[in-house]
Amino acid sequence: MIVILSSKTAEERVQEIVRIIEKHEVKAHISKGEDKIVIGIIGKADPMLAEHLRQLSGVEQVVKISKSYKLASRDFHPSNTVIRVKGVEIGGDELTVMGGPCAVESPEQIDEIARLVKTAGGQVLRGGAFKPRTGPYSFQGVGVEGLKMMKEAGEKHGLLTITEVMTPEYVDVCAEYADILQVGTRNMQNFDLLRKLGTIQTPVLLKRGFSATYDEFLNAAEYILAGGNPNVMLCERGIRTFEPYTRNTLDLAAIPVLQNLSHLPVISDPSHGTGRRELVEPMAKASVAAGANGLIIEMHTDPDNSMTGDGVQSLFPDQFARLLQDFEKLAPLFGKRFDTKKQAQAVLA
Amino acid sequence: MIVILSSKTAEERVQEIVRIIEKHEVKAHISKGEDKIVIGIIGKADPMLAEHLRQLSGVEQVVKISKSYKLASRDFHPSNTVIRVKGVEIGGDELTVMGGPCAVESPEQIDEIARLVKTAGGQVLRGGAFKPRTGPYSFQGVGVEGLKMMKEAGEKHGLLTITEVMTPEYVDVCAEYADILQVGTRNMQNFDLLRKLGTIQTPVLLKRGFSATYDEFLNAAEYILAGGNPNVMLCERGIRTFEPYTRNTLDLAAIPVLQNLSHLPVISDPSHGTGRRELVEPMAKASVAAGANGLIIEMHTDPDNSMTGDGVQSLFPDQFARLLQDFEKLAPLFGKRFDTKKQAQAVLA
Amino acid sequence: MIVILSSKTAEERVQEIVRIIEKHEVKAHISKGEDKIVIGIIGKADPMLAEHLRQLSGVEQVVKISKSYKLASRDFHPSNTVIRVKGVEIGGDELTVMGGPCAVESPEQIDEIARLVKTAGGQVLRGGAFKPRTGPYSFQGVGVEGLKMMKEAGEKHGLLTITEVMTPEYVDVCAEYADILQVGTRNMQNFDLLRKLGTIQTPVLLKRGFSATYDEFLNAAEYILAGGNPNVMLCERGIRTFEPYTRNTLDLAAIPVLQNLSHLPVISDPSHGTGRRELVEPMAKASVAAGANGLIIEMHTDPDNSMTGDGVQSLFPDQFARLLQDFEKLAPLFGKRFDTKKQAQAVLA
Amino acid sequence: MIVILSSKTAEERVQEIVRIIEKHEVKAHISKGEDKIVIGIIGKADPMLAEHLRQLSGVEQVVKISKSYKLASRDFHPSNTVIRVKGVEIGGDELTVMGGPCAVESPEQIDEIARLVKTAGGQVLRGGAFKPRTGPYSFQGVGVEGLKMMKEAGEKHGLLTITEVMTPEYVDVCAEYADILQVGTRNMQNFDLLRKLGTIQTPVLLKRGFSATYDEFLNAAEYILAGGNPNVMLCERGIRTFEPYTRNTLDLAAIPVLQNLSHLPVISDPSHGTGRRELVEPMAKASVAAGANGLIIEMHTDPDNSMTGDGVQSLFPDQFARLLQDFEKLAPLFGKRFDTKKQAQAVLA
Repeated sequence: MIVILSSKTAEERVQEIVRIIEKHEVKAHISKGEDKIVIGIIGKADPMLAEHLRQLSGVEQVVKISKSYKLASRDFHPSNTVIRVKGVEIGGDELTVMGGPCAVESPEQIDEIARLVKTAGGQVLRGGAFKPRTGPYSFQGVGVEGLKMMKEAGEKHGLLTITEVMTPEYVDVCAEYADILQVGTRNMQNFDLLRKLGTIQTPVLLKRGFSATYDEFLNAAEYILAGGNPNVMLCERGIRTFEPYTRNTLDLAAIPVLQNLSHLPVISDPSHGTGRRELVEPMAKASVAAGANGLIIEMHTDPDNSMTGDGVQSLFPDQFARLLQDFEKLAPLFGKRFDTKKQAQAVLA
Repeated sequence: MIVILSSKTAEERVQEIVRIIEKHEVKAHISKGEDKIVIGIIGKADPMLAEHLRQLSGVEQVVKISKSYKLASRDFHPSNTVIRVKGVEIGGDELTVMGGPCAVESPEQIDEIARLVKTAGGQVLRGGAFKPRTGPYSFQGVGVEGLKMMKEAGEKHGLLTITEVMTPEYVDVCAEYADILQVGTRNMQNFDLLRKLGTIQTPVLLKRGFSATYDEFLNAAEYILAGGNPNVMLCERGIRTFEPYTRNTLDLAAIPVLQNLSHLPVISDPSHGTGRRELVEPMAKASVAAGANGLIIEMHTDPDNSMTGDGVQSLFPDQFARLLQDFEKLAPLFGKRFDTKKQAQAVLA
Repeated sequence: MIVILSSKTAEERVQEIVRIIEKHEVKAHISKGEDKIVIGIIGKADPMLAEHLRQLSGVEQVVKISKSYKLASRDFHPSNTVIRVKGVEIGGDELTVMGGPCAVESPEQIDEIARLVKTAGGQVLRGGAFKPRTGPYSFQGVGVEGLKMMKEAGEKHGLLTITEVMTPEYVDVCAEYADILQVGTRNMQNFDLLRKLGTIQTPVLLKRGFSATYDEFLNAAEYILAGGNPNVMLCERGIRTFEPYTRNTLDLAAIPVLQNLSHLPVISDPSHGTGRRELVEPMAKASVAAGANGLIIEMHTDPDNSMTGDGVQSLFPDQFARLLQDFEKLAPLFGKRFDTKKQAQAVLA
Repeated sequence: MIVILSSKTAEERVQEIVRIIEKHEVKAHISKGEDKIVIGIIGKADPMLAEHLRQLSGVEQVVKISKSYKLASRDFHPSNTVIRVKGVEIGGDELTVMGGPCAVESPEQIDEIARLVKTAGGQVLRGGAFKPRTGPYSFQGVGVEGLKMMKEAGEKHGLLTITEVMTPEYVDVCAEYADILQVGTRNMQNFDLLRKLGTIQTPVLLKRGFSATYDEFLNAAEYILAGGNPNVMLCERGIRTFEPYTRNTLDLAAIPVLQNLSHLPVISDPSHGTGRRELVEPMAKASVAAGANGLIIEMHTDPDNSMTGDGVQSLFPDQFARLLQDFEKLAPLFGKRFDTKKQAQAVLA
């Protein structure tokens, strides 16, 4: 950490600041320039120290030169995290495709969609049982019944399941029924939820807050890891910008950046990331080309009548199947395997 | 609601869309132009309909011409909401000032700050017992003990108290000790928390999400109102932009806009809204000039040693007192009362 | 166009507004709902009308349902624009690669880089002679001398050349020396410059303003097209967001969106779009996967000593060559040709 | 300046970087920590050096601790700049009000509006003769004729005049007719225009680019100052954010920030900053409370028929006059004078 003071700071104040720093069992190293006095801090500073120093009068700038997250950082864990669930590996050589409707609506709907995801070559069935909705009068999901329907459809067709959990008190019931739990963009900094997810071992797909920096995103993952759950995937799902044409701006540079900074698998969500069906295919392929470990894609048999209004970004089943065929050709160029036939016949462990 | 189709849409599809619309007990009114076919919807459409129509193939645009929130809207409640707590009125003729530290640290600290807030003429004591923190290794607050310390300090000095609640399961205990509950910016769309707050009558100060639109903000308030709690204040606390110099960009236009769209009181937070002590005073005064019903301002007796690192945006006690003196002159120009002497002597009901 | 009034608007005012509309030789079609009165406008409205109506008292909203640009729109020009320069086609079946340094520095530097671009398989040599710089004390480019050096290097090695033009008075001299003129992000709405570029036939690569919407971007292209120059390429080069880690956020969805809305070729700039060397390769490949017609990539033989400070985002020559090798495999999956050997031997027409 | 390397950097490379630094006639001071090596640079570094160092391999971060602008900085010019034109002082004790239409339309229109601005107590008449327009088919202004009309109206009624100049070649003719030249938001980084404005002495009102940081804004001002023209005013006019309700987000914190960093007068534009008539009054007053040196406000006698479509944000003459009455009461609370009667009778020097 580096602390910058004006060169006009009184010597006495400089010494006071040094004393405050050295209380934290690190060494301060002063260097005086023409305009500024620079104090370098040598040793492992605790994360609070930067915040503390920033508020001292006389201090103009505090520059952190080490990261505030550790367990999520590639510095502390150089090799990739590979998450293994019932024989499926996420974060390894295989490209992972999660597909399904925005919301579970009925046993028939989710069974039929599961069948289509499986035969197309996907490995994970997505579907929401509890839905976060901007206004209180919108459809809020079918609840625990939906979890049961998904579990049944997943088991029947040989797919893992992923569903969103919105509040700490529902973590246990969601983990009972689903193989992977999703934290939505609005909950990326719901710290009580993150802490609770740290106490279990079920894999978590953490979506980036729609206005979160990479640093905040990795700090949110750190909450789960620090609690003791190492099975975290990061999901880029678009950020909020001034552009009104797309629902969000899918930030594909996040994929290589997060893979450089962290060892956790990175999944891309081109459906929420664009909000428009015609953009899902090009952005899904671009995600693979940017190095994504997997994709989460909305697909619906009858988007005209989807209950959540997200049908507008859902692929039709034949589009979904064609896209996975294309992944098969594309993935090897990026060091990944994706074998639709093998996956269509794979049985969960 | 207005639905826009390309003029190339097949007549059959147009009729299909009309049938879908009219299932919702509203009337569809078709008008054909050169480029586009426009369907006007007449009658009270349910809020899901727009989302549903947007996803139909053939539909290019859906324009909502009524708002999706009702109870929060001035159309449904033309006169201002005035929230009354123990004799203090928020949202009426009086300017409300909430002051205090970012976090409660000790009984002595909060007692001394309460004394200073009261003698300066503030009406509400702010302080965090549970702190939302970006990283898991930062100070997370002193918990329920802090709530007790605040309650005691508030009662002793004749101040209302406000504290942040972060998760549904803590709502009851926070409401037992504090007069007003605050929902932080990261929780504006924590819908389970909002729903829980709708079930009680304790006033709620809802902070705007740092990337929330006005429409999303009012929809979040609608969750609490729809649950049965009419005592909601809106708080502008800065939005995230590309500017790195300030912590956030305080959007003061939000004050008159929210007061036009809604009847709820609007409070400004120039401390978090700027993140810099030297900007708190000008932005606090600008907030009053923009018509704010109140302010929430961080103040600390020893910002150098504040435990949260937010000391950098906390006023010193004498700055706080001078600012309230200035409010006394400024408020009457904007139709508000603010009498520091009277308030310093006021006893809670 | 659709005009929305409150249903409380007096009948007299509604009639007044209709009269204002019908002065513009279009028909107004009134439809009254419960909350709102909707006026549909039938016929070709002139672009000023929307702006005019928006300001009338009583008018709540004006919804444009046709686009304000015409010549740039795919509606008016369904097939792709293919720009042909000295035997090179941009916007057709071939992927176009433009490579070179941020700034031309010396005859030796640009000659050596041209040789490397050519042997790697690129078709266009980029290089700045006039540099737009945030502060007045930074290196501003070598001027007309640089144009001459580039022309010579391009001719010698069989490459087209592209260079930035910053002001109307330099358009003619730049067009004398370079094959393609570039408009930088800060000049996207320098309307005098755009107008001047409309008067010549030299192809123009128009960079998206770093905070421009798609609509504004296409309107800027419209200025050039409307002046009589049909040879316009659109270039996505990253937008400004809250994320500090990357220099810009490269918005790859812009590629398919602009190709849907317009017939003009779309080029991606992963160098400025990320500002970091290690991200250029993944984002370049992702651009091809998103459907880009071409790429513009910074490459430098000695980035440590580049004069502009953009070395940090420049590829080394061997990285550049490997990337073009990879394009060769990738392009055919996206319906494009890219043959490095053939291009290395191609002679300009 | 501080340069940060990984502690894993080879000693040889560290020495190489030191040699590169010391070529620039400054001293490098190395300090080694556990994770990082920090090189402090002592002496006046030229502005290019930071850009240069950032691109060296091994360098992780370069932290500028001095500003890149000088003449615009308060460090180099501690007292406020006061611009004096024909007896009017801008940036001193007096609040300056500039009012008028978006565009000059006819001699009668501008004469009548000038009369109203003067009798209300304004000091400057604004009006556009050349208009920057997003699309090429919109009204582009009346040109030099408009300049003449404004000059005549200003002289007749005793008002200074301000008008926008869009391109270097029009600077001289605009300066011949107008007292103050305005650079619009889209031209804040039109460096050729800024350089040209540096060669004259006519005061310049420089509008902040709608996505420009404070640092970029002050660097743009530096271009004009460095050319030799000290008469620059900074104008905050709203930035682009994700919020669609207002045309821009007026960033009032910019006022105290720019006044802290710079000695130049700061003017606020609540008309473009909000784009809505009903928000102009509260945001104008908030601007005064935030410490603005002046305001530029659109006013029109017949906004229904304004030719630019900006009528929607123009005040009616009576609103404008009432607002100036209110400034008279408000200004003294912020250390400013504003005397409408005196100003209505003032004669230009």
